[in-house]
Amino acid sequence: MRASDCSALLTDLYQLTMLQVYYERGMNQTAVFEFFVRKLPPERNYLVAAGLEQVLDFLENLHFTADEIDWLAACGRFDGKFIDALAGLRFTGAVQAMPEGTPFFPDEPILRVVAPLREAQFVETRVINLLQFQTLVASKAARVRHAAADRLLVDFGLRRAHGAEAGLLSARASYLAGFDGTSNVLAGMRWGIPLYGTMAHSFIQAHDEELAAFDDFARCNPQATTLLIDTYDTEAAAAAIVPLANRLAADGIAVQAVRIDSGDLGDHARKVRAILDAGGRPEIRIFASGNLDEYLVRRLVSEGAPIDGFGVGTRMNTSADHPYLDCAYKLQEYAGAARRKRSEGKATWPGRKQVFRRIDAAGRLVGDTLTLEAESAPGESLLHTVMREGRRIAESPPLAQVRAYAQRQRAMLPDALHHVEAAAAYPVEIAEALRELARQIDARMH
Amino acid sequence: MRASDCSALLTDLYQLTMLQVYYERGMNQTAVFEFFVRKLPPERNYLVAAGLEQVLDFLENLHFTADEIDWLAACGRFDGKFIDALAGLRFTGAVQAMPEGTPFFPDEPILRVVAPLREAQFVETRVINLLQFQTLVASKAARVRHAAADRLLVDFGLRRAHGAEAGLLSARASYLAGFDGTSNVLAGMRWGIPLYGTMAHSFIQAHDEELAAFDDFARCNPQATTLLIDTYDTEAAAAAIVPLANRLAADGIAVQAVRIDSGDLGDHARKVRAILDAGGRPEIRIFASGNLDEYLVRRLVSEGAPIDGFGVGTRMNTSADHPYLDCAYKLQEYAGAARRKRSEGKATWPGRKQVFRRIDAAGRLVGDTLTLEAESAPGESLLHTVMREGRRIAESPPLAQVRAYAQRQRAMLPDALHHVEAAAAYPVEIAEALRELARQIDARMH
Repeated sequence: MRASDCSALLTDLYQLTMLQVYYERGMNQTAVFEFFVRKLPPERNYLVAAGLEQVLDFLENLHFTADEIDWLAACGRFDGKFIDALAGLRFTGAVQAMPEGTPFFPDEPILRVVAPLREAQFVETRVINLLQFQTLVASKAARVRHAAADRLLVDFGLRRAHGAEAGLLSARASYLAGFDGTSNVLAGMRWGIPLYGTMAHSFIQAHDEELAAFDDFARCNPQATTLLIDTYDTEAAAAAIVPLANRLAADGIAVQAVRIDSGDLGDHARKVRAILDAGGRPEIRIFASGNLDEYLVRRLVSEGAPIDGFGVGTRMNTSADHPYLDCAYKLQEYAGAARRKRSEGKATWPGRKQVFRRIDAAGRLVGDTLTLEAESAPGESLLHTVMREGRRIAESPPLAQVRAYAQRQRAMLPDALHHVEAAAAYPVEIAEALRELARQIDARMH
Repeated sequence: MRASDCSALLTDLYQLTMLQVYYERGMNQTAVFEFFVRKLPPERNYLVAAGLEQVLDFLENLHFTADEIDWLAACGRFDGKFIDALAGLRFTGAVQAMPEGTPFFPDEPILRVVAPLREAQFVETRVINLLQFQTLVASKAARVRHAAADRLLVDFGLRRAHGAEAGLLSARASYLAGFDGTSNVLAGMRWGIPLYGTMAHSFIQAHDEELAAFDDFARCNPQATTLLIDTYDTEAAAAAIVPLANRLAADGIAVQAVRIDSGDLGDHARKVRAILDAGGRPEIRIFASGNLDEYLVRRLVSEGAPIDGFGVGTRMNTSADHPYLDCAYKLQEYAGAARRKRSEGKATWPGRKQVFRRIDAAGRLVGDTLTLEAESAPGESLLHTVMREGRRIAESPPLAQVRAYAQRQRAMLPDALHHVEAAAAYPVEIAEALRELARQIDARMH
């Protein structure tokens, strides 16, 4: 289940319809498309670029299989010569992009495709599908990281993620953005993400006695004993764990943590902490899960709940308060001429663009400038070439390295942007050269 | 990209950890798990069961590959004999379920798995992952269908769906629940879902003149000419289409529709309708898209906006106002004894259950009874055996047949449930036999 395993037919019909017109009209000069987000979702102060790795995998491997070509020929919508051309379709273009883990802001392109029109157009649907989802989840996960400070954060969201790829890629995106690990075994196998897990309520229920379930689990998992204590009565289970932990300790087995998954997590955590401490087990940690998101984690942390780690699932993996980004992959140049869409509320900045980011002496971000690629501005440029002639120019960094980069980038954000409430907008200046180009195009179109 | 193509390791670590305990302790008697939704999301009046087909595909094909077994052996968490047992793991159990397309309500199981404990436990993560997502989307899509009455509804959501499988399965779920088609080509190939598509703004922008783009498109697509008119100035484009349509008509090509994708859709539709009618083109239909959901579709329809069809994407495919269901797959019986979880706010009804549905003389749903499988109640039973010994007992019906069933079921719902606002709850009675069993288990646990 790699991004490239997916059929090339996982696309919108109009891509093929448009390509047929381009084919029949001989239109295939160089096109420049850019992916950007129009505005931040509510409460978000910044976004975290993610998904580039899967986009590059998709582009490098793009092709139609013989079965797909046969189906296209049989469906009756397309001309035979055009279908022959599709059978040879590969991505031969260039890609410039921000590195994964880079914070970014509205109107800033995070990816640019420069390729013959048919290729650059055809890849639109899947490029958006891959970039928007991982960026959405990474941006949400970064907020949970801000709320949790340095407490353990584990992705528990596979079951309610939207399908298999969402489960897999949200484990990747959340780890990239600062989570410590995931329960998702395939994500562990694929990217070496640290794996965490406890037990389900069914494990307790399958035993006639809760304490027997705890004992069974600890003796079979002496290295990783976290016991789920809310199946029947949370505090009663905590009280029973004290003598159990003493008996297990005598056999060299340590109960590492208990997990609470329902009720008022802060209240239960305080009571359980008191029970464990009074029983001489201050080393047993408390792990909480159940409908968590950055708002609830922040409340628990600010109230001083004695919780050492959080399992965060559904609301993070689905970005539940806003499960999509207002994003687009737009034609900015064709055949050497800048292009501009002017639809109401959806006008775009034309041309090939670059983002320059200014950083102060203390290493903090000060402001960005959005300008044309051919121009320059103070600060570091954020978009770099990552693919030429359809091939990556370098091997992708290991995910742990991307995560470390994202962590450094997060630390460079102005303090106000670390909050889970909306702060004043980070300054992104539109350069005069870009405004002038937009004016010229508008004048040409009238 | 079938549900079964996905690695068996797309699961939570704790499934494997628990299985190892069950293996070492020799626990593998018959377990009964049921999937149900605890409560309806806000504004929802009912849910539509969907995803069974993919669950059955997953169960029939469950196995670990040699690579996966090697990785498990190398990861150092599991015992060699247990890994050998995993290599032979198959699903050999039975499944009872409601047919896809059946409306259902909180606490009603839509799927029951009866299998040896290890198998029934192991499949939990992916069963939830498949059932909750399609049910979520089908339930949302049914709301859009209620709002749109008999207008054309097309799924446009692939690009902002959460990954590849979400895009594919949301096309299926929305069609099943009443949409007319999708833009998703792979969904068309896989299930024969009717395909729809127009053109992108980039198609207009790649041409130097908007009218030249329209003309090119119509002449290359004489059978399916829908023109996107909001790239620059919606009404100006509509006015230009009148003489173009006349010229095309002279060549035997009909402009079928125009699409509006931005601004106040109702206002633009009225102006465009007037322009087309005044130009003698009343047959050109108006298709609208852009951030649509059931609330906006209902407003446009109730205001009498002259819109003939809607492209509905992101907000439907992500179920944007509530992108997940409060659902669970819970152990209800093990080794012949009913089981019950009593966690706060998450207590379950124990035992193997059946749902009986009463229908009045006019064919309308009157109320349901949730009771034990061994009991009976007035009405039709909704859960039926669909798998025995790990194999389907019958071929699955074609998707068009499932869609027709869902349509008949929708027509049988009480009128109030057709609204997009929350109505009074549909009556679901908990039978006394079930309450008594819950009391017995609670007494046993104290």
